[in-house]
Amino acid sequence: MPGLRRFDDMNSAATQPATVDETIALVRECSRPLGVDPVPLAESRGRVLREPVLAPEDQPPFDRSSVDGYAVRLDDAAMRFRVVDRIRAGDWKPRALQPGEAVQIATGGALPADGLQVVMKEDVRVEGREIVALQRDSEQNIRFQGEDARAGATLVDSGTRLSAGALGLLASVGVMHPTVTRSPRVLHVATGNEIVPPEQTPQRGQIRDSNSTLVRAFFGQWGIVPGQQRAGEDAAQIAGAIANSRFPIDDADLLLISGGASVGEHDFTRRLLEEWGYTIRISRTTTRPGKPLIFATRGAALAFGLPGNPLAHFVCLNLYVRAALDGFSGIAEPVAFAEGTLVEAFDAGANARETLWPSRMMVVDGGVKLMPLPWRSSGDLTALAAANSLVRIPPGCGTLAAGAKLAFLPTGW
Amino acid sequence: MPGLRRFDDMNSAATQPATVDETIALVRECSRPLGVDPVPLAESRGRVLREPVLAPEDQPPFDRSSVDGYAVRLDDAAMRFRVVDRIRAGDWKPRALQPGEAVQIATGGALPADGLQVVMKEDVRVEGREIVALQRDSEQNIRFQGEDARAGATLVDSGTRLSAGALGLLASVGVMHPTVTRSPRVLHVATGNEIVPPEQTPQRGQIRDSNSTLVRAFFGQWGIVPGQQRAGEDAAQIAGAIANSRFPIDDADLLLISGGASVGEHDFTRRLLEEWGYTIRISRTTTRPGKPLIFATRGAALAFGLPGNPLAHFVCLNLYVRAALDGFSGIAEPVAFAEGTLVEAFDAGANARETLWPSRMMVVDGGVKLMPLPWRSSGDLTALAAANSLVRIPPGCGTLAAGAKLAFLPTGW
Repeated sequence: MPGLRRFDDMNSAATQPATVDETIALVRECSRPLGVDPVPLAESRGRVLREPVLAPEDQPPFDRSSVDGYAVRLDDAAMRFRVVDRIRAGDWKPRALQPGEAVQIATGGALPADGLQVVMKEDVRVEGREIVALQRDSEQNIRFQGEDARAGATLVDSGTRLSAGALGLLASVGVMHPTVTRSPRVLHVATGNEIVPPEQTPQRGQIRDSNSTLVRAFFGQWGIVPGQQRAGEDAAQIAGAIANSRFPIDDADLLLISGGASVGEHDFTRRLLEEWGYTIRISRTTTRPGKPLIFATRGAALAFGLPGNPLAHFVCLNLYVRAALDGFSGIAEPVAFAEGTLVEAFDAGANARETLWPSRMMVVDGGVKLMPLPWRSSGDLTALAAANSLVRIPPGCGTLAAGAKLAFLPTGW
Repeated sequence: MPGLRRFDDMNSAATQPATVDETIALVRECSRPLGVDPVPLAESRGRVLREPVLAPEDQPPFDRSSVDGYAVRLDDAAMRFRVVDRIRAGDWKPRALQPGEAVQIATGGALPADGLQVVMKEDVRVEGREIVALQRDSEQNIRFQGEDARAGATLVDSGTRLSAGALGLLASVGVMHPTVTRSPRVLHVATGNEIVPPEQTPQRGQIRDSNSTLVRAFFGQWGIVPGQQRAGEDAAQIAGAIANSRFPIDDADLLLISGGASVGEHDFTRRLLEEWGYTIRISRTTTRPGKPLIFATRGAALAFGLPGNPLAHFVCLNLYVRAALDGFSGIAEPVAFAEGTLVEAFDAGANARETLWPSRMMVVDGGVKLMPLPWRSSGDLTALAAANSLVRIPPGCGTLAAGAKLAFLPTGW
C-alpha cells in the first residue's frame, strides 16, 4: 500500500491529513493480534478463536437411531419380529441380531450392531412381545458414526468469532476452555474544562460528559471494560488521572484521550502522547466529523486522540478504534464497508470533505436500504438514538437521488 | 389473524401442527411486555426503553462557538479589534461587546452575548492585544441554543433498544437511570438419559449435553442468565431439578425444557407442563428441524418444550424463543424475516416440509446474499460455527438456482 508510506517516512509531526481508507489501513497494519487466553466456555461468546477446534472423536461417536422404532437386520426381509431387547438413549448394549429378531430402540439410542435398519414406531403394529412391520422401505433411519465429522476434522477455524451456536458445537466436543484472544487493556481519559460528570447538573457554560458513557458502552459490545478517568485540560491533571487508573499506562494496549474540540487541545494531546513515548502517525484526517484525529503507536501499543465532539467520537470509535479492536482480536473477517442504496433522495450539503453520516439501515426486497439521519453539527447526538450504521458521503456531491449507492458500515448496539 | 383461532379454540391437546408463521404469531400474541426497571445507565446497553426520553433543557443549552477564534459584533464591519476578554470552554462570562471589541473564545465556549459572530483563529493576525481579521464572511460559527433539540422534545422513543450511541445521548441529558423493561426470569432444564455434562467424557452410548451451553449463550446476547439444571427423564428427577433452581417455577416468565428427541419424551414434557398448570397451545410444527415443538402458556408465563436435537434447538431458539423475548421486551421493531438471494445454486433436497437451514449471510453489491450451510441431520451442529442466519426453504422445492429469493432471519452472536 504505497500511499501509506508517506506517514511512515515522516517524522513525528505527521501533518498530512489522511483519508478514511488510509487511516483504517494504517490502524490495521499497526494492530497485531494480542496473546491468547484459555477462557471458560460460558464466558467465551463473542471472543475470537485462535486455535482451530478439531473433532476429538467421530461425530456422532457411534451409530445412533434417528427415530423411535425397532432395529432389525437390513438383510432380513421378514415383516414379523420377536422383540428381544430394549435400548434407550444413553444405553450401550451391543449384540448380534438373528433373523426374525428386533430390538426396540429410542431416538438417539446406540445401534447394537452393524448392518441394521430401524423401522419407525409409526410403521409397526405391536402384538404382545412381537411386532409386525406394516411397511419397510430402504431408509435405515440411522445417523452413522462420523457422518457429521471424522475424528481430527476441523470443526471451527482459527479467527472465528464465537457465536452462541459455535459455543454449542464446542460443548458437544467437550472444549471447555477454548483458546481465544485475550481482552485488550484499554485506558480512557475524557479531558476538558467544560465537562462535568453526567449525573451532575452543569453550571452555565458547562456541559455533561457524554463521551465517557459512549466509550464505555462501545467497548461493552465486546465485553471490554476500559479503565476510565475524567480530567481538566492541563498536563498535571491528565497525568494524575492516568496515574489513578486501574492499571499503569505501560500496560495499556490502547489509550484513548477524548480531547476538547479546540485546536489548542489537539496540540496538547499530541505533545502529551509524544512525552509518553508514542510516535504520532496521523494527526488529521480529511473527513468530517473527526478531522482532528490523532493516531499514535508505541511498539505494539496504540493511542487515539479523539476530537471531543460526541458525534466525532461515535464516528471515530466505529471507524478507527473498531479497526484496532479487530486487528487486536485476530479475527479472520474484520468489519468492512459494504454497499447499500439510499431509501430516498438526500441533501448531503455539498461539503468539500468526505462526510460520515449516522444512518439507519434496513433490508427491503433483498437489498440493503440506507437512511442518513440528520445532524446539525458534530456536537449533535440526537441522531444516535436510531443509528445502526454509518454512511460515507463523497465530497461535494450535493443532493443524492433515491437509489444512489453508498458505502456503509454497521455500528451494532 | 383468523388462521390462529383453531389453536385457541381447541382443548389442551392442540395436536394440529402449526406453521412457522402461525407459531411466531401466536408466541407474539402471548408474550406481553414485562414490567419496568430503572437500570443504571452503564448497564442499560441492549435494554428496551419504555418511557420516551425528553430533552430536559435546550440542546445545546447555550450558544456555543463551533471554532477557536474571536467573537465580534455581527453588525460591526471593522477588521481591526481590541481583545477585551478570553472565554475558555466551561467559562460563563456574559458581557456586551462594543464596536471594535473582540473576545477570544475557544471551541465549545459560551458566547458572551447575542448578535455575535466568531471569526476563525485561522482568519486572524494577532498584533499584541489587537487582532486584524484577514477576511470576514457571513458564517457565524455558532451552535445556537436549542438548534439540536428544544427542551421537552422527544430524544429517544419508547420501544427503542438502547445502543451505545443512544447511551451517549442519554448521558448528555443526564438520564442516569433510564426506564427499561426488566429482564425476564428464565428457567431451563435439559433432560435426557443419554446426556452427560460437557466437561465429562461420555461413556459409550452417551453424548455431551451441548444444549445447556447453547441456551445459556443464546440468552447471553441480551444479558439474561437463565437458571439451569440437568435431569434424567423421569418426573421426579425433573421436578427435583426445578426445585433446585435459583428461583421457584412460579416466578419464571419463561420455562424451557430441552427434551430428548423421542416421541415418548415429547409426550412426557407435555404431561409435565399440564401438571404444572400450563395450557398446551402448540404441540407440533410443520417444519424441520423442530417438528415436535411444544408451546404452552400459564397466564402471562410461557413455556417451550424444545426437541433435544441441537440444531432443532438453534432453530427454535432463534425463531420462537426470540419472538417471546421481543414480546416481553416491548421493542417497537421486533426481529422479522427479510429477503435475500442465494449466492449459488443449492440442492434443498425436495423435502415435503418447510426447512430452516443455518446459513451465512453477507452484503455484496448492495444486496443480501445467503449461503445455506450443509447439515446432515438435526443432530449435526457443525454448521453452527459459521452460521449467522437462518433461511427458509419452502417445501418440495428441490434445487434452487443462484439468485433465488429466500426469506432469512439474522441469528446474531
